[in-house]
Amino acid sequence: MNLIFTHHPADSLNTLLKEAGRPHAMILADSHTLSACVEPLREACPALADAPVITVEAGDVNKNLDSLRHIWEQMQQLGATRRSLLVNVGGGMITDMGGFAAATFKRGIRFYNVPTTLLSAVDAAVGGKTGINFGGLKNEIGAFCDADAVVISTSWLATLPAEELKSGYAEMIKHALIDSPAEYRRLLDFDIAAADLTGLLPLVERSVMVKKGVVEQDPREQGIRRALNLGHTAGHAFESLAMRRGRPVPHGYAVAWGLVVDLIISHMKLGFPSAAVHELAAYVGRVYGVMPITCDDYPALLELMSHDKKNATPGAINFTLLDAPGKIHIDCIVDARDIEAALDIFRDLMGI
Amino acid sequence: MNLIFTHHPADSLNTLLKEAGRPHAMILADSHTLSACVEPLREACPALADAPVITVEAGDVNKNLDSLRHIWEQMQQLGATRRSLLVNVGGGMITDMGGFAAATFKRGIRFYNVPTTLLSAVDAAVGGKTGINFGGLKNEIGAFCDADAVVISTSWLATLPAEELKSGYAEMIKHALIDSPAEYRRLLDFDIAAADLTGLLPLVERSVMVKKGVVEQDPREQGIRRALNLGHTAGHAFESLAMRRGRPVPHGYAVAWGLVVDLIISHMKLGFPSAAVHELAAYVGRVYGVMPITCDDYPALLELMSHDKKNATPGAINFTLLDAPGKIHIDCIVDARDIEAALDIFRDLMGI
Repeated sequence: MNLIFTHHPADSLNTLLKEAGRPHAMILADSHTLSACVEPLREACPALADAPVITVEAGDVNKNLDSLRHIWEQMQQLGATRRSLLVNVGGGMITDMGGFAAATFKRGIRFYNVPTTLLSAVDAAVGGKTGINFGGLKNEIGAFCDADAVVISTSWLATLPAEELKSGYAEMIKHALIDSPAEYRRLLDFDIAAADLTGLLPLVERSVMVKKGVVEQDPREQGIRRALNLGHTAGHAFESLAMRRGRPVPHGYAVAWGLVVDLIISHMKLGFPSAAVHELAAYVGRVYGVMPITCDDYPALLELMSHDKKNATPGAINFTLLDAPGKIHIDCIVDARDIEAALDIFRDLMGI
Repeated sequence: MNLIFTHHPADSLNTLLKEAGRPHAMILADSHTLSACVEPLREACPALADAPVITVEAGDVNKNLDSLRHIWEQMQQLGATRRSLLVNVGGGMITDMGGFAAATFKRGIRFYNVPTTLLSAVDAAVGGKTGINFGGLKNEIGAFCDADAVVISTSWLATLPAEELKSGYAEMIKHALIDSPAEYRRLLDFDIAAADLTGLLPLVERSVMVKKGVVEQDPREQGIRRALNLGHTAGHAFESLAMRRGRPVPHGYAVAWGLVVDLIISHMKLGFPSAAVHELAAYVGRVYGVMPITCDDYPALLELMSHDKKNATPGAINFTLLDAPGKIHIDCIVDARDIEAALDIFRDLMGI
């Protein structure tokens, strides 16, 4: 896989497509990225100037079988062959669904990912997970299939809301915690609110390389890839609870809160340094705010955690924990009482 | 992959499932195999006694997105997890579609193939090609994904029409031509009309191993796997022409006629022995009969051949040829005039 970090994504794509022998290329975009990203890209990238564009409605709710069928139909009508190539330009919804459409069209054609959000750049675009939501469950249908190239640039992020940048940054903090104390320090000291997109690119590069390193050890998520689940057991529960309340929160915000919970449990179980827990809680409270929960929400949160599809054993609640930044422990079973104690401490630290 | 040839498929499945730790197993069947195969199988295989059965309508026309969606929904409703296992019991339509459903459910669960027709035993059940028809094109959507086990038995074939046996046998003759003079001789000397199912099993085993050997060298069909296309360029054209006429022919019959055409071209281009061409033509005429074509059909046949998806270059017609049994040449470009000459000889040899 070609993995490129650049301030000039159109130039990089042009070079890639020339080197690939100028294949029959098609672009997949959503209603947001069509004008914001695809039009400037086609203007600046001669190899894509005449590429037809397949569009789907934006939003995770449209990452579904109807949209997938539309993409397959469009590729067929465009005369795509086994040698065609799909360029996915968008957030995780586009790279996930476009990757799956390409992985299954004529049993697999090539695809490139051009992530246009921070979250998709550091999370969805690399790692081979493709798919759609189905029957009310996220990513229920899909395949493991690597993009042939991923072109990552922070130049797309200038026009995005601050909330999206912060959401993606939570996944970067997660990767830094998995990586090393130094990288973790570097991220907490960087001011994401200042939106210095040039300065952000090297941090993104390091973050993606951490994920790539983990995925390469375990592409099918049978072991160490679950390290990437750090912050996500509690995070998904917060995200689902917010959804049930009719007040959804961005994925990364829920992950940020989940990271605080996971560090608290890491302190309780593995002696993760208390000062570092306090520091992250203060950082998260300042950047992401808080989600109001009371002890009345604990049963719902525990039930949501126990349904996480990464739990190996039904009923058991499985956490990824750390004894220090860079020192990961996967498959830690934590019982309900300890989780409730951690939620008490979480509320205390966050001032909820 | 576990590949088992047996006269006792229920016992083999029972052993496999016990060794796999008795996973949550589901069965996929169609309206034909449900009573003829699944019921006796569940009675004789304790590990499948309580396995739920997902059924779809029989027939290649139902190898479509609606049926696939039904299978995904049923697996979800049955509470399937990443550790569940799908047992596909049926012909190629079931193993193709069930394999694809399993390959994509939660990004891939395990599946076993239990082919119940001769054609699926020697062709579809092994080789990793899974998928569905889409937008009027065969196998347009799919994935390469190997079954975790394939249990092959001729015991299912007793109740099938003679036509189905003969159809599968044409693919076996193809494999024998790819394999060796001795194997080819053995197949022409075996009396498929006598339906000696015990004697057939070792021939099936050899045939499947030939296919497996080719596929292992080139799982993604980028080169030598096209050897398996022998007989299929002309064969698919005969099959499509018969469909257009509203008088469809079994796939294997079309392949048998296609093999004769390919041997004629092999004689013209590579000096394949003339006596062997005559022998196959006589054999095919006796076992499969003939499809009436005249020179007025040549333009349609040539147009159909040029659309074969295995053609590497648009417009060129690509054949797999032999200079002798066991000596394969892939990617032979043959021009229209030579194909027409071969069709003339074909009509002459077959007495059309």
